[in-house]
Amino acid sequence: MTSPVASLADAASSGDRAALAKLLTVVETGGEPAREALAALAVRAGDHAAIVGVTGAPGAGKSTLTDRLVAQLRAGGERVAVLAVDPTSPFSGGAILGDRVRMQDHDTDEGVFVRSMASRGELGGLSRAAPHAVRVLDAAGFAWVIVETVGVGQVEVAIAGTADTTVVVVTPGWGDAIQASKAGLLEIGDVFVVNKADRGGVESTVRDLEGMLALGASSSADTGETPAWLPPIIPTVAVEGRGVEDLVDAVRAHRRHLEDTGGLAARREQRIRDELRGILLERCAKHVDAICSGIPFGTVVRRVADGELDPYNAAAELVGDQQ
Amino acid sequence: MTSPVASLADAASSGDRAALAKLLTVVETGGEPAREALAALAVRAGDHAAIVGVTGAPGAGKSTLTDRLVAQLRAGGERVAVLAVDPTSPFSGGAILGDRVRMQDHDTDEGVFVRSMASRGELGGLSRAAPHAVRVLDAAGFAWVIVETVGVGQVEVAIAGTADTTVVVVTPGWGDAIQASKAGLLEIGDVFVVNKADRGGVESTVRDLEGMLALGASSSADTGETPAWLPPIIPTVAVEGRGVEDLVDAVRAHRRHLEDTGGLAARREQRIRDELRGILLERCAKHVDAICSGIPFGTVVRRVADGELDPYNAAAELVGDQQ
Repeated sequence: MTSPVASLADAASSGDRAALAKLLTVVETGGEPAREALAALAVRAGDHAAIVGVTGAPGAGKSTLTDRLVAQLRAGGERVAVLAVDPTSPFSGGAILGDRVRMQDHDTDEGVFVRSMASRGELGGLSRAAPHAVRVLDAAGFAWVIVETVGVGQVEVAIAGTADTTVVVVTPGWGDAIQASKAGLLEIGDVFVVNKADRGGVESTVRDLEGMLALGASSSADTGETPAWLPPIIPTVAVEGRGVEDLVDAVRAHRRHLEDTGGLAARREQRIRDELRGILLERCAKHVDAICSGIPFGTVVRRVADGELDPYNAAAELVGDQQ
Repeated sequence: MTSPVASLADAASSGDRAALAKLLTVVETGGEPAREALAALAVRAGDHAAIVGVTGAPGAGKSTLTDRLVAQLRAGGERVAVLAVDPTSPFSGGAILGDRVRMQDHDTDEGVFVRSMASRGELGGLSRAAPHAVRVLDAAGFAWVIVETVGVGQVEVAIAGTADTTVVVVTPGWGDAIQASKAGLLEIGDVFVVNKADRGGVESTVRDLEGMLALGASSSADTGETPAWLPPIIPTVAVEGRGVEDLVDAVRAHRRHLEDTGGLAARREQRIRDELRGILLERCAKHVDAICSGIPFGTVVRRVADGELDPYNAAAELVGDQQ
């Protein structure tokens, strides 16, 4: 007897797209079914997909670039999955557009699978769900899993940053290197794209980036990380497909570099660390929610309201700490 | 003997602005000094400030409106504090602008105190820090504390929503009511502002909002919440100061309503609930971080990498669960 979730995992691994979509919903939702699904997948997941993160400033053209990247990889016959992570601001309406309007060129192509994922709340949900989804897509046998962070935010950047290869997309208008540095993008980028390269200012953006990256390379050489990878900077005009072949070459080159240096295993371990941390955080949040819906909570809140107790001692009391 | 932090709390409560600024840093940073500071303040905090949240879509003119609101309240001689909460996107550079370039009209006015607060990471930090800061500003004797959420995000909206009076700012261009509903703004707004009312489309925005709010009012009448407050909709042109007096009148009217119906105590309790939850979440996050930096974590990560263990059972093992 296999459980329904285990059967779903079986079907998804053998290429059933409807089963795959359902399984992704299961692991995103969490709880016992997610637990079962991931246990069923653990023995299957070969970690064979190449995970590519795509991130960058809003309006840099990440979605278009991802579409072109997919087309380029498909031209070589490889199966590609796209996971679009969206922080779902209460003002933007979030990931609703995702699956339907995007990737229309690929919607009759069985070798392409696109999934949007909205972040859910503040607590571990996203950092748990994204690696889970990558794990499922990997087990489903895609050669490439592209994780595109639609929105901005530290969590999204962190997710893109734990791919095997992280592509950071900037535009000539945006690209002041200090800003990139502040955003932590210089640190996570394995390949940089200066998109909309038909606009002015490409050369100075490339030069700024080169300068900053050279500084970074010399500091990582100090830490003995050898042989160092100096991130290439690829000018593209994604809407016209210009430079996309160069981008794919750069991504493949970085992958070979990882394979040659053993970096691939380190990246995969980092993703597992993030995934486990997400699960632990979510467990914690549930524990806190249970405390906050208990009867003693109301009593303690009133004592704080009356000035009898300060918030920290109140919290200590709720978790049974000696203070 | 009073501790240095308790002395700081004393000084801040007696109007020492430098001490107040330091104390805010202490409570935002958290840890033992924050604990001490809040314990020292617990006996002082009279809960006498009126807490006003200001939130809304990006570009709606919240900052300008807040500035005008401050000027209007100052005209009546009341002391006003502004807490500007910014989610600090890695791409925006965050709250750095805050204190320095804003509120220039008020910078020689001892009756106005402005503080920017960046959100820090994903875990409880912001939901803990904002109520702490409000608590400190309250204890410092301001008549009004305006909590303006500079950015967007569920956490920021939630913070603005637990004010005594929440002002939701929209613009004619923005205001499709379904979007407002989706964002949860209709639910949290006690007073609505249609800013930039010199643009076209004000009437239809007001009409849309009125329709949605009337629906909301009839559903809350069903739940027996009486007497219901029907949120007023105030057109403003903040850059010219137009409508700001009406806004202040509406905020004062809502406050009287809360006082008359006992709603004020409920709002305050909700803030304390949020604050305690934030403290508990942060404790949890620290616990998780400790697990993730322990020796067994590395071992478990490698077993997951080798496909011997799935992530959920790995997490269960790390916290010592029987599975």
